Amino acid sequence: MSDEKLQNVLSSLTPVARQLDVLPSGRPAPDASYVKLDTNENPFPLPPIVMQGARAALERQYLYPENDNISLREAAARAYGIATDQVIAGNGSSELLGLIYRAFLTPGDRVAMLSPGFSFNRKLAMLHAAQLLEIDSAGPDSLPIEELLSGPATDAKFVLLANPNNPTGVFVPLADIERLLVRSDRLIVLDEAYVDFAPDNGLRLLSRYANLLILRTLSKSYAAAGIRVGFGFGHPALIGRLRNIQNVFNMNVIGQAIGISILSHLAAYNDNHRHIRDERQRVAAELSRIGFCVTPSHANFVLAHVPVGQDGRWWQAALAEEKVLVASFPDESLESCIRISIGTKDQMDAFLAATNAISARTTRRGC
Amino acid sequence: MSDEKLQNVLSSLTPVARQLDVLPSGRPAPDASYVKLDTNENPFPLPPIVMQGARAALERQYLYPENDNISLREAAARAYGIATDQVIAGNGSSELLGLIYRAFLTPGDRVAMLSPGFSFNRKLAMLHAAQLLEIDSAGPDSLPIEELLSGPATDAKFVLLANPNNPTGVFVPLADIERLLVRSDRLIVLDEAYVDFAPDNGLRLLSRYANLLILRTLSKSYAAAGIRVGFGFGHPALIGRLRNIQNVFNMNVIGQAIGISILSHLAAYNDNHRHIRDERQRVAAELSRIGFCVTPSHANFVLAHVPVGQDGRWWQAALAEEKVLVASFPDESLESCIRISIGTKDQMDAFLAATNAISARTTRRGC
Repeated sequence: MSDEKLQNVLSSLTPVARQLDVLPSGRPAPDASYVKLDTNENPFPLPPIVMQGARAALERQYLYPENDNISLREAAARAYGIATDQVIAGNGSSELLGLIYRAFLTPGDRVAMLSPGFSFNRKLAMLHAAQLLEIDSAGPDSLPIEELLSGPATDAKFVLLANPNNPTGVFVPLADIERLLVRSDRLIVLDEAYVDFAPDNGLRLLSRYANLLILRTLSKSYAAAGIRVGFGFGHPALIGRLRNIQNVFNMNVIGQAIGISILSHLAAYNDNHRHIRDERQRVAAELSRIGFCVTPSHANFVLAHVPVGQDGRWWQAALAEEKVLVASFPDESLESCIRISIGTKDQMDAFLAATNAISARTTRRGC
Repeated sequence: MSDEKLQNVLSSLTPVARQLDVLPSGRPAPDASYVKLDTNENPFPLPPIVMQGARAALERQYLYPENDNISLREAAARAYGIATDQVIAGNGSSELLGLIYRAFLTPGDRVAMLSPGFSFNRKLAMLHAAQLLEIDSAGPDSLPIEELLSGPATDAKFVLLANPNNPTGVFVPLADIERLLVRSDRLIVLDEAYVDFAPDNGLRLLSRYANLLILRTLSKSYAAAGIRVGFGFGHPALIGRLRNIQNVFNMNVIGQAIGISILSHLAAYNDNHRHIRDERQRVAAELSRIGFCVTPSHANFVLAHVPVGQDGRWWQAALAEEKVLVASFPDESLESCIRISIGTKDQMDAFLAATNAISARTTRRGC
């Protein structure tokens, strides 16, 4: 094979694509013997009525999906009390986040993000040769509004927030988000992936602020991470532009059908959400008893500072040896933390048993 | 709502996104009473063994899909006799085509495409502010190699071919494709969406030419258009770059599972492919008898010049009144054509009955 041809093809790539190292292949999923609490999934089956819709869609697999996800967008509009042209549907909200980067950024542009935040943005910023400004959180109950809008962030093309935030679980009052929307003329992207576990949400702000774009997903509160259904809500003029640049047939017929079915049966998830909140409280209380410091969470996970003497990575590895998977983080501010997704009672019992066993082998001195 | 905020947000969009008109929402799918022969679907259910895999995947819907589509890429590598790192899996091959544009083009760049070709490229070129050079086909049996590589196409970043071609159904001998690969140092994208209905394919060229990227899809020959599974095959260094810039979790668990299942049971489609080839022959013969001129096709559709006196759009509308949907084209060279997908025997009987009825009402004078 001609090496010259290969070099010529690779040199034709855009600078960003050319400079990226070829990454190793991703890891296969862990086997089912692990208790998987590392990526905030919601480990419950689809309600039977939703599963029926999915099976019916399988019979139509040979037809192209509906153009522009119209029925799914209509279902979302009905469920959330907005207009269909305020809705874009994505193959997960991660597709929509990627679209926002593509729509707004040229190489060298800046983006401002509340920190700690969703680390996927670091990859997106790299892919768009953008500069990601990570602005330290002002504290658990308010936003660093000045820092998000001025100083280095003055010319950021958009501002990224998540409420509740990941990986902290912190929920900022909507009044604070509204203050930011009033103060800024730039796009504020509000990721509400975990909002169904929180006391409030930002939907009512949509009609008042044309610079607000809300992201939602069915991955967390609707137990459909594997199906990849996400939404963006915003002004029709902006949503229309994003739909324009979206991949054709971006979702398959199963994603569309399950999405519509879930949105038509939101109340079928009330028990699921109550369970998550109850388990979250139980796990937080138990972790505190063992010597962890738990950040009050409004999501389907808890962030916990491990007891002094070890760091988050040590605990992550120790739990993995007990067949329990949790998340740890490379960020300096999160070095002493692990994040535990809230799963079934059995899963959380297994996590707590493993944590107690590890804790009993180590000195406890608070966090 | 502040109009100023909206204007400011819209003005922050990149030039391409800013200049695009907001398109109207797509059309809903036609109701099931129509005989749908307009988008080259393959209207057969999944083989039972493939459907089993799909149903099993629905039970794992709450887990994120496998990272980087590893098992699916391994299944494709096994099925096609190549290495896993030569495979990228897409949410339809349309996602992969979009990735190629993103990976190679900056605004103003050129792309060369054999014409008539897949019109979706016009949209992709527009979205990337690229110039699409549509190079007229040299005739049914050979490629216009000089025109694809020199003149205005000299600095094209890549060359797009489809073999068999859409919408003509023409199949170019592999020797011609190889001549192009030898002559050029640029990337040649060979879309083999319809190749399972043709007498040969380009897989054996992969190991010899690092400037070849082959696209495949399960939409046509494997009756899974609604599931969105496509593949790109190429040199690991190029495939790795494309995987780098791909959306995370780009396919859902159902797409992955059905893809793996289909690739593990390719022989289950032999009857399907034989049926399509037989019906293609029957429809072409019958159309010729009525006064259409049919381009010999190696795909699951036929392109037919309508009898003189009407154009393709007229026939498309007349057939739609009889509840039969076929494709027509805005291109000048295709004004007198309709494209008919090959479906079930019942569907083709309905198409032929409608065509005969329309023909009987109009003067026949050859095409």
